[in-house]
Amino acid sequence: MLEDKNPQRTSLSELGEFKLIEHLTHQFKINHKSTILGIGDDAAILTPAKKSIVVTTDVLVEGVHFDLSYVPLKHLGYKAVMVNLSDVYAMNATATQITVSIAVSNRFPLEALEELYAGIETAARIYNVDVVGGDTTSSTSGLIISITAIGEVEDDKVVKRSGAKPNDLLVVTGDLGGAYMGLQVLEREKEVFKVNPQNQPDLSMYTYIVERQLKPEARKDIVELLEQLEVKPTSMIDISDGLSSEIIHLCKQSNVGVDLYENKIPLDPQVISTCEEFNIDSTTIALNGGEDYELLMTISQEDYPKIKANPNLSVIGYITEAERGMHLITRAETKVPIIAKGWKNFNETDSE
Amino acid sequence: MLEDKNPQRTSLSELGEFKLIEHLTHQFKINHKSTILGIGDDAAILTPAKKSIVVTTDVLVEGVHFDLSYVPLKHLGYKAVMVNLSDVYAMNATATQITVSIAVSNRFPLEALEELYAGIETAARIYNVDVVGGDTTSSTSGLIISITAIGEVEDDKVVKRSGAKPNDLLVVTGDLGGAYMGLQVLEREKEVFKVNPQNQPDLSMYTYIVERQLKPEARKDIVELLEQLEVKPTSMIDISDGLSSEIIHLCKQSNVGVDLYENKIPLDPQVISTCEEFNIDSTTIALNGGEDYELLMTISQEDYPKIKANPNLSVIGYITEAERGMHLITRAETKVPIIAKGWKNFNETDSE
Repeated sequence: MLEDKNPQRTSLSELGEFKLIEHLTHQFKINHKSTILGIGDDAAILTPAKKSIVVTTDVLVEGVHFDLSYVPLKHLGYKAVMVNLSDVYAMNATATQITVSIAVSNRFPLEALEELYAGIETAARIYNVDVVGGDTTSSTSGLIISITAIGEVEDDKVVKRSGAKPNDLLVVTGDLGGAYMGLQVLEREKEVFKVNPQNQPDLSMYTYIVERQLKPEARKDIVELLEQLEVKPTSMIDISDGLSSEIIHLCKQSNVGVDLYENKIPLDPQVISTCEEFNIDSTTIALNGGEDYELLMTISQEDYPKIKANPNLSVIGYITEAERGMHLITRAETKVPIIAKGWKNFNETDSE
Repeated sequence: MLEDKNPQRTSLSELGEFKLIEHLTHQFKINHKSTILGIGDDAAILTPAKKSIVVTTDVLVEGVHFDLSYVPLKHLGYKAVMVNLSDVYAMNATATQITVSIAVSNRFPLEALEELYAGIETAARIYNVDVVGGDTTSSTSGLIISITAIGEVEDDKVVKRSGAKPNDLLVVTGDLGGAYMGLQVLEREKEVFKVNPQNQPDLSMYTYIVERQLKPEARKDIVELLEQLEVKPTSMIDISDGLSSEIIHLCKQSNVGVDLYENKIPLDPQVISTCEEFNIDSTTIALNGGEDYELLMTISQEDYPKIKANPNLSVIGYITEAERGMHLITRAETKVPIIAKGWKNFNETDSE
C-alpha cells in the first residue's frame, strides 16, 4: 500500500498551494525555443515554430484508470504524460509542451506527490516536452491527473483519422494486447497479496507485459521514422481502447470498410503464453484489450516498398469500400464483423 | 439537492463513453478561423493568427471549489470557463479555444451533465471561444472539471506579472469582495435550509453579490478597452485569490514594493451593506476574499490621462522600490504590511 512505502510523510497542508506548486514544479526545465514563458504567470506564452499546433487532453482518475495498490506513483506520472503524447504523435506532430493539473486528497503526503512529479519530469525530459503550466488542488477523495499536450506540425504533414481510402494498407506499430495482459497479471497478484501479504510475487515471467501496463512508451519514434521513410499515412489514430475500437473510428471517420487479417496481428510471445495461462484467446485480447499506445494507420499502396522491411510496422489488413463493412478474416478464413468493446467493458464480454 | 431538481434521469452507463462525449459536445460550433479541426480526432488542430499563444489550465473540484447544494450546474459550467478565460485576459490576450475534461460519478444523471455543458456552451458562445477537445470519464466520487484555455496575442502586446516599475499606478477593474460575500450569503441560506427545508430563501437583497459568486464574468471587455485606450499595462494578473495575494505576486515577480490605499479600493454598496450585516470589515473582504475575477494591473504614470475618466478602472495605489515593502495605507493613515491569506484559509484568519 502507498502509505507503507513512504516512511517520511510531510502533510500537504504544511505547505500552502503556492509553495506546493513551486516545490513540485521548480525542477521543470524549459528546453523548447517555442516556450517563451513557462510556469509562474497567469498563462504560459508559446511561439510555435510551425504554423499548425495540435492540442489534446486526457484525465486519469484513481479507481477508474489506475489502482495505487500496484501502480508506483512515478510510473503513474510517466504514463499520464505518455497517454497524452500518444495523441499528439497520432496527428503526426511533434509534442512540445504539456500542462499538468492534479487534484489530490490529503491522504497523500508530499513525498507521494514528489514521486508522481518525478515520473512526469522523467517523461517530459525523455520526450523533450516542456511542462509549462498546471494547477494543484485538493480533492475530496482520490487522485486525479489531467494533462493537456500541445504539439507542432507542418500544415501538409498533419494526419487525421478521416483520410483512409479504399485499397490503403492498414498498418499497426509494435505489438498488441501486452498492456491488458500485464493488467491481468497485476490484478491476480493483488488478489494473492490480499490473501497472503507475506507472499512475494514473482513477476519475472511477465516483465514485458507488466512494463507495457505500468510504463508504456508513446511512439515518438514512429513519427520520426515516417519522416525518414518519407511516408505520410492517409489516416492515423493511437490505440488506447483496443484495436477493434480504433479501427471502427478510422473507418467511420474515413467512410470506408476494412478487412483485418487475424494471422497478421502482431503479438509478443509473452502475450501468447500468458493468454494460454489465463485461458483467454489472444486475438480477443489484441482486439479489445486497451492501453497499448501503439499507432494504427493507413498507408497508400504505393508507399508499401518504403515500409516493407521495417520491423516496427506490420500490415494487418486492407481498406475497402464502406459498403463492404468492417471484418476480421480469421485464421480459419471466416469473416467476422468487427465490434467495438473497449477494454473497460471487457470483462463483461470475455465469454463471447 | 441536485437529484430532486431532475425529474428525468438517464443513467450515464446507458450511453457508452463515445456516445456520451458525442451527445454532450455535438452542440459546440466552431467559429474561429484558427480552429482547423475541433472535437473528434486524437487532437484538435489550430493555426493561430498571431505569433504568440498563451495556455492556461484550472481544475474545479466538487466539495473544494463548489457545493452543488446551491450551485446550479449550468452556472458551474459557465464559471469553470470564466475562471480559465480570466487567466488568458490577464496576459492581455484574446481567448480563442478551450478543452474541457470532466470526471463524474454515476450519481449524476445524463440530464445533469447536459445542464453543465449548456453552461459551458453559453460561456463559449458569449466569449467567442471554440470548444476543441476534451475527455469525459467516470469518477469514484464527485464531479471534477478541468479546463485548458488557449489564447492569441501579438508578441509586443503580451503582459506578464513581472513588468511593474516604481512610480507605476496600481489599477484594478470593477469592484472587489462581492463573490466572497455572495458565498457567505449562500452558505447561510444552506444552513437555514438544513434546519427548515420549507423555508424559501429571499435573496433579492443580495442579487449582485450572489451573481458575482455564481456567475462571474471574465474581463474580456478590459482587454478590448485597453486596446482602444492604447494603454499597455506594465504588468497584469487576475484576481482569483484576493487582492492581497495578487498584489504580492505582482510585486515579488516585478521586484517592487507597493503602497495600497484603503480608501481607494472599489466596493459595491451591496458588499458594504452585507459586510455590515455579517459584521465583517469590508476592506478585509476586498483584500482576502477571492473569486472576483477582476484584473489587477500596473500602468505607467504617463498613461494616467488615458484611463482617468474610465469607470471600469480604479487607481488604488502606487508601485515603489522593493526596499519600501508592500503596505496598505489605511483610512486612519497608518501603514500596515500586506499579507497574503487567500480566500481558502480566510475563515481561520477572519478574526485578525
